Amino acid sequence: MTYDPGNIFAKILRGELPAFKVYEDDKVLAFLDIFPRAPGHALVIPKAPSRNLLDVESADLAAVAAAAQRIARAQVKAFGAEGITVTQHNEPAGGQEVFHLHVHVIPRQTGVELRAPLSYKETPEVLAEQAAALKAALEG
Amino acid sequence: MTYDPGNIFAKILRGELPAFKVYEDDKVLAFLDIFPRAPGHALVIPKAPSRNLLDVESADLAAVAAAAQRIARAQVKAFGAEGITVTQHNEPAGGQEVFHLHVHVIPRQTGVELRAPLSYKETPEVLAEQAAALKAALEG
Repeated sequence: MTYDPGNIFAKILRGELPAFKVYEDDKVLAFLDIFPRAPGHALVIPKAPSRNLLDVESADLAAVAAAAQRIARAQVKAFGAEGITVTQHNEPAGGQEVFHLHVHVIPRQTGVELRAPLSYKETPEVLAEQAAALKAALEG
Repeated sequence: MTYDPGNIFAKILRGELPAFKVYEDDKVLAFLDIFPRAPGHALVIPKAPSRNLLDVESADLAAVAAAAQRIARAQVKAFGAEGITVTQHNEPAGGQEVFHLHVHVIPRQTGVELRAPLSYKETPEVLAEQAAALKAALEG
């Protein structure tokens, strides 16, 4: 397993692609998934190059987990999420499609199924509004 | 949200229920899911009482994440897993059914779909064999 710096999350980290960012510290970045499985679906990634859980450095993994918790709590506050589903995929057999470690943090409402991955692309307007709400909850 | 010490993972931690344990340290326990979504499916839980990601203490969360990584690497070694899928469910709306924080670490093979949750109960003989293989990989 190797790390390919041409992946889209690496491009977001380098500022070569835009993202609806919601949280950033020295070790991690979090932003909204443009193909949300539910409204407010966020991704947490380490800033250091890491393909997935199998190769990530332990300090980066701990920072990603801590940020995922912050995001989850903020989703409850910002969106009234009744539950949170966290998923993380490793290698193609494990469902990974972008080869930079990422954790999906997905707000849930009772009785609402998750959309299939990549089945729905959200509009920039809605994503901007949700990112602002989530940032406010994270800072509040 | 409160913590109910009568949940089955709390009973496993207290030794009141058996489990096919594969890893243990001062902060976490890992054991096989008796309803595996794929062969070798493991669960990682903190020893401290925690309902889910929303209330877990940061040191316990970091220890759970680190143990999940160790388990994932050992599943590659022990079972020849080609990928790993990690899921973690919070509150009933998020898919949580046992109210002690747990992370699912699931070995994957190319083209093999995950079984639906709770759809298949593994035999004790197979679980014992898989636990031994995973422990050996963790210790090796």
